[in-house]
Amino acid sequence: MSNAFVLFEERIKKNIRHMVDKAKRNQITLRPHFKTHQNPKVAEWFKEEGVLSITVSSLNMAQRFAQQGWKDIFIAFPLDINEVESLDQLASQVKLRIIINNLTSLQCMKNLNHPLDFMIEIDAGYHRTGIDFRDEAHINLLIEESKKLLYTNFLGFAAHFGNTYKARNRKQIEGIAHKSINRLWDLCEKTEREQDSMVMLSIGDTPTCDVMQYLLGSCALKEIAVAVACPVVSVYKDESKMVIYGGGVHLSKEFIEADHDFKLFGYVVRLDKNLKWTDPIPGAYVYSLSQEHGLIHMPTQDLETFKPGDLVGILPIHSCLAADLLKDNTLIL
Amino acid sequence: MSNAFVLFEERIKKNIRHMVDKAKRNQITLRPHFKTHQNPKVAEWFKEEGVLSITVSSLNMAQRFAQQGWKDIFIAFPLDINEVESLDQLASQVKLRIIINNLTSLQCMKNLNHPLDFMIEIDAGYHRTGIDFRDEAHINLLIEESKKLLYTNFLGFAAHFGNTYKARNRKQIEGIAHKSINRLWDLCEKTEREQDSMVMLSIGDTPTCDVMQYLLGSCALKEIAVAVACPVVSVYKDESKMVIYGGGVHLSKEFIEADHDFKLFGYVVRLDKNLKWTDPIPGAYVYSLSQEHGLIHMPTQDLETFKPGDLVGILPIHSCLAADLLKDNTLIL
Repeated sequence: MSNAFVLFEERIKKNIRHMVDKAKRNQITLRPHFKTHQNPKVAEWFKEEGVLSITVSSLNMAQRFAQQGWKDIFIAFPLDINEVESLDQLASQVKLRIIINNLTSLQCMKNLNHPLDFMIEIDAGYHRTGIDFRDEAHINLLIEESKKLLYTNFLGFAAHFGNTYKARNRKQIEGIAHKSINRLWDLCEKTEREQDSMVMLSIGDTPTCDVMQYLLGSCALKEIAVAVACPVVSVYKDESKMVIYGGGVHLSKEFIEADHDFKLFGYVVRLDKNLKWTDPIPGAYVYSLSQEHGLIHMPTQDLETFKPGDLVGILPIHSCLAADLLKDNTLIL
Repeated sequence: MSNAFVLFEERIKKNIRHMVDKAKRNQITLRPHFKTHQNPKVAEWFKEEGVLSITVSSLNMAQRFAQQGWKDIFIAFPLDINEVESLDQLASQVKLRIIINNLTSLQCMKNLNHPLDFMIEIDAGYHRTGIDFRDEAHINLLIEESKKLLYTNFLGFAAHFGNTYKARNRKQIEGIAHKSINRLWDLCEKTEREQDSMVMLSIGDTPTCDVMQYLLGSCALKEIAVAVACPVVSVYKDESKMVIYGGGVHLSKEFIEADHDFKLFGYVVRLDKNLKWTDPIPGAYVYSLSQEHGLIHMPTQDLETFKPGDLVGILPIHSCLAADLLKDNTLIL
């Protein structure tokens, strides 16, 4: 084998149940983002827990999951008007929901031949994309214009609170979430009064359990359910260094910036013969990535237990990107 | 279309000729690294200029180019001993060269059934991987041990001067190159005397012409031969901002760090109707990337010329990574 994206079934199923229960308790519909795994098997585990509606980040991903039998798909990326025809085709097969954040894009939906739900994307404070939550004129314009379009149905508002990634702890995350949700609630209520109909609200930031989430305080190390298995190719005891076949094309170049000039590209775990792992090796981390090389710093006494050819596990910084890069090379434990 | 890796044929061919001529003038063999494009068509353009020997960065890439008829392939990545069997199989079809940097890996070649050339990887100052150029005992041990192996042939030394990427200008690049080459020359001469046979030297850092190379002063903007074509999905005039479908899964998360906290993920070019481009739009750049979103800052007067659905070109920071991500979605101009 070369390297592989390893899915820890037991942990993933536990995480799925945890999220499903949490959503039920709070009476909200869970529509998990499948870009996090992009895996048909994990998709089935969601289905076993009663999840039938999903989110994806591209038309291509939507097409793939439609082929695998998913019937209710939300493409949580602003409409690319070059894709309207393909969207229309997909909308003839599944219940499809997209996001719109400007008039030009909305008007391109006039040629649809199949029903397509859309949500207006709102910028609730993250400033990546979406209409500013205060810009009611723009929002109302889109709602009114959509009524002129035969197959285009306004459902409500969608927002992503990506600014939670910049939070330093759980309290800050909650602060951002509260502030953003309140802004959206106000907008929803006002719109419901004006439109005299129910307005849906769809929100989400990465619910998965990866290193980034652990550092943000949103999950525990034992909940991290994916690792990238990489072969060791060189061990340098004098430098407390180990080189693996596992670089930017496997792990992505995503990193956590710790102290000045120090970058953390992933934690390191020992894989047992079934490729399962426990906690990371204390003091061991990926500190540099080239295209195919990963450089690991590791305390000498641990380093001495590795030799070229051994497999080591890396907990990637952002599992979504590693999942995308290694989607054709996945192992399930 | 969604997004695509666009190859500017005229510029690429010019760059290839430039490199081939430069190598001829200096009487060295050019063995271009095909990870830079991973494209069968570009490969043919090299062949047209008389190039028959190539470099790749993984066994998988070697297998792909072998299938396309390439007969002399150097895998410039330290041997992963889990792959010896597949290497042996490939060595039965093509002239194969690998790199070795430790005894454990070398000894795993005892089971080969086909001739396999190897180079010893030397660390000439970059400190990523390879044996320290001063560690003659280790180097000699590998050479002597290799003589006991039937099908394993020691060719010489290989090194990558990755530290040139940290240089700030052409003069610093040349300084690093000179210092490293002198270290390797000394090692080669000493080894030739001891072994009483010729010892080859193989070196290289990315010869391609991408943004990183431009910033390092190793090429001109007009030589940049690849761009990623991305559809515009939102335009925010008030914020001098444009959002494209083009994120970390297309461009990679590679960036240039400019001033404090400012990251540059790519320059922006206008694509004409044939997708060709000239110089970047002054003051326009990609300043943030999510998985699928790219955020562009652009002066207002330029921003006004774009609308959702238009295509815009991004000159990626490191073309190798974008080439890998978009290798199944390439357009040739």
